[in-house]
Amino acid sequence: MRSGLRALSEIPRFDEEADVVVVGLGCAGAAAAIESARTGARTLVLERASGGGGTSALSGGVLYLGGGTALQRACGFEDTPEDMFAYLMASVGDSPDEAKTRLYCEGSVAHYDWLVAQGVPFKPTFYHGISGEPPTDDGLVWSGSERCRPFCEIARPAPRGHVPQHPHQTGHVLMRFLVESTRASGARVETDARVVALVLDGGGAVVGVVASRFGAERSVRARGGVILTTGGFIYAEDMLRRHVPRALRCSMRVGAEGDDGSGIRLGMAAGAATLHLDKASISLPVTQPWGLKRGVLVNAQGQRFVNEDAYYGRLGEAALFHQDGRVWLVVDDEVFEEPDYVKRVAAVGETPAELERELGLPDGSLTATLAVYNRHAKQGEDPLFGKQTEYLKPLERAPFGAIDCTTEKAIYAAFTLGGLATDPDGRVLDPEGATIPGLFAAGRATSGLSVGGYSSGLSLGDGTFFGRRAGGAAAHAK
Amino acid sequence: MRSGLRALSEIPRFDEEADVVVVGLGCAGAAAAIESARTGARTLVLERASGGGGTSALSGGVLYLGGGTALQRACGFEDTPEDMFAYLMASVGDSPDEAKTRLYCEGSVAHYDWLVAQGVPFKPTFYHGISGEPPTDDGLVWSGSERCRPFCEIARPAPRGHVPQHPHQTGHVLMRFLVESTRASGARVETDARVVALVLDGGGAVVGVVASRFGAERSVRARGGVILTTGGFIYAEDMLRRHVPRALRCSMRVGAEGDDGSGIRLGMAAGAATLHLDKASISLPVTQPWGLKRGVLVNAQGQRFVNEDAYYGRLGEAALFHQDGRVWLVVDDEVFEEPDYVKRVAAVGETPAELERELGLPDGSLTATLAVYNRHAKQGEDPLFGKQTEYLKPLERAPFGAIDCTTEKAIYAAFTLGGLATDPDGRVLDPEGATIPGLFAAGRATSGLSVGGYSSGLSLGDGTFFGRRAGGAAAHAK
Repeated sequence: MRSGLRALSEIPRFDEEADVVVVGLGCAGAAAAIESARTGARTLVLERASGGGGTSALSGGVLYLGGGTALQRACGFEDTPEDMFAYLMASVGDSPDEAKTRLYCEGSVAHYDWLVAQGVPFKPTFYHGISGEPPTDDGLVWSGSERCRPFCEIARPAPRGHVPQHPHQTGHVLMRFLVESTRASGARVETDARVVALVLDGGGAVVGVVASRFGAERSVRARGGVILTTGGFIYAEDMLRRHVPRALRCSMRVGAEGDDGSGIRLGMAAGAATLHLDKASISLPVTQPWGLKRGVLVNAQGQRFVNEDAYYGRLGEAALFHQDGRVWLVVDDEVFEEPDYVKRVAAVGETPAELERELGLPDGSLTATLAVYNRHAKQGEDPLFGKQTEYLKPLERAPFGAIDCTTEKAIYAAFTLGGLATDPDGRVLDPEGATIPGLFAAGRATSGLSVGGYSSGLSLGDGTFFGRRAGGAAAHAK
Repeated sequence: MRSGLRALSEIPRFDEEADVVVVGLGCAGAAAAIESARTGARTLVLERASGGGGTSALSGGVLYLGGGTALQRACGFEDTPEDMFAYLMASVGDSPDEAKTRLYCEGSVAHYDWLVAQGVPFKPTFYHGISGEPPTDDGLVWSGSERCRPFCEIARPAPRGHVPQHPHQTGHVLMRFLVESTRASGARVETDARVVALVLDGGGAVVGVVASRFGAERSVRARGGVILTTGGFIYAEDMLRRHVPRALRCSMRVGAEGDDGSGIRLGMAAGAATLHLDKASISLPVTQPWGLKRGVLVNAQGQRFVNEDAYYGRLGEAALFHQDGRVWLVVDDEVFEEPDYVKRVAAVGETPAELERELGLPDGSLTATLAVYNRHAKQGEDPLFGKQTEYLKPLERAPFGAIDCTTEKAIYAAFTLGGLATDPDGRVLDPEGATIPGLFAAGRATSGLSVGGYSSGLSLGDGTFFGRRAGGAAAHAK
């Protein structure tokens, strides 16, 4: 059969048998295994690395949760599933999965409690001052564009970044507890085991896997189902070139070598449809510290193109996909401070006209942009993009500077968002929308909540949430 | 087996046998059938409509050809395969298929001669004054952005729109000759025959089809291969919603009901990879007559975003995918003339400021844009986007007007560009890049030359060119 597939008829007798086989032990795999084993299903996790954790363990650790979680309430924030739903539907891209998004928002409070029950610690304190990953051990943080236009007019804002307790980059904390919980659940974890093929019966159903361990292949029957939780494809050059070539221009790839799309391709070989392979999350962390949001981002025509107070993922997406990665953050002497992540000043000038010349922008372009911006900023208004009043200040005090935010010089941090098409229970779908019997998937091997627009924590969030659902559904099918 | 597939083991005996089965009789199917039958292969064409022609017959009929065709030379234009290649590689999108593009450019002169040999008439006269489909019976026309920046600096421009002789909308002329040539080649054409499944052998190779005709199914063995030439999916609501939802906002769908993605889904069911399902050609024919290119297109921030002299497909793509379809063409009294296709004037003003207010644009935004534009236009320059000098004129004579180019009011003509992944011989590829034995495809059921940026004639061009190659390859495999 084709690469990645094995016919049942070729396998006289399985070497091993389980109810549920989970492929990969990142956050989605752990959540799937825990929920599967919890029902009594014999659950086997096959992880190709020598230990669990995957890309999740290398991540910032933020989980996008809300609707009034215990943590939000402890920090004094109100939130509702409806506001969370409205924000996500408006912000995650052109074609969000409404059913998944609704389930996620309605189940978010309970999902937070589930994480706590697995032992994951969250300190009930709020950190103000940065999007995404706080440099402290605080538990709650803004992690999206909730307070920015147009979203603040669509849904009541609330911080929804839930961060396991640890100073900075807490993905390993999350995964330590989830891997421990996986083992405690009764699931059996086998590392150094790479799944090289799915076993199909004559009707096209997935009935097992072939795994390779130190060069020796063995077959495992999966009575209930196989769950692919193998991550995205930010480390698959060929797939990037074909589907989202602009990601190749990003200076930072958020992921690990396991994010090579192998699980996505296994699913495709079995007839799965894919969704949004062309979409990526692109972070451009140029407005940290937040005072830099008072600058203006301009493109190669000297024009603004986004409200600078937006989440850095939104800035990156706008800069890379709509402005070809040719953008600069223009500041004056009052606004300037040392950026946390983007170090290069592209040009300095005593006047906007001089800065414009130094940057090689069209004569009069940046000057006109700043004149319009300043005039409105004095009134506390930004009629072009609606930046929040607290970041509106006329840029008038010389010298003027431009922080280099081009793809050549700035951090663009990318990971892929597209993957296998699944229903809300993680069942993998074929191009006609029918389920492929026996095949499940979750996490970044699938198309999840974000289909182009990102907020920090959506991947760990949907990976664990829909991983749990897939685990339950596969166990039920045994 | 899954929808769209039938196992060979379920078919005790094929009802019929052919060397090559071509699915669909548009331009790609006809070209494939002609080349297959020409080699002596028993060739069967199955077309689900009651006659041949498909979407190709409803099209404008332009074929994008060049490199120094007989028609180009007769009209006094020089061109080389290298210039054509450089233009295409720069203009067709982020991730062009270099191998296909090179073959196409190197084979374009001979492909034109082949079309002539099939009887397709081309009048050796050049029409100046419109992109795409001339209102005359002239044979050669500009059909892309060759003379516009940045392309004119990348490759020497030449008109490459080759148009079968007939006043306007000549796709039916092309298809009349190609269908006649198909029948003359010895291929057997069966209409009202819808292919409902591909037949797979135990190794995953495609060995035939199941076709339905007036409710009765029958199986056809294909010894050499099955060639899917079933068109795109602009009439598949669900696929558009999933992959390219913005196309749903376009007022015009370029295609026929056969463009429902069914052939793409058949291929996917057999394990094919897809490419660029998120990409569409979007035409915004607002600068016809061409004098209107002297206007400026502005977005909801009152900013220019493209050189207005670009091909209408480039304007549409920029407007829909990067400006959310909220754009207006601003003209003054000297530039204004009745547009051919976009009729609604959104606002009029005695001054730019009044026009800006009437349009609801931010105070000062359009005024600043026009001031910068006019200052440079007086020098014959457009440092923002490099519009050609002949279309540069300061917009100063009152009254000023804005032609409505929003998705709500203007023509946006859309068709899909993504489809099955194929090699240059039309062999369908799986996610690992391996061929699926016995399965071929061409035309808009595949990802072809354009992977996001369009010039008129690329679809009929690559459909016929790679259709021929697929036909030859499938016949050779018998």
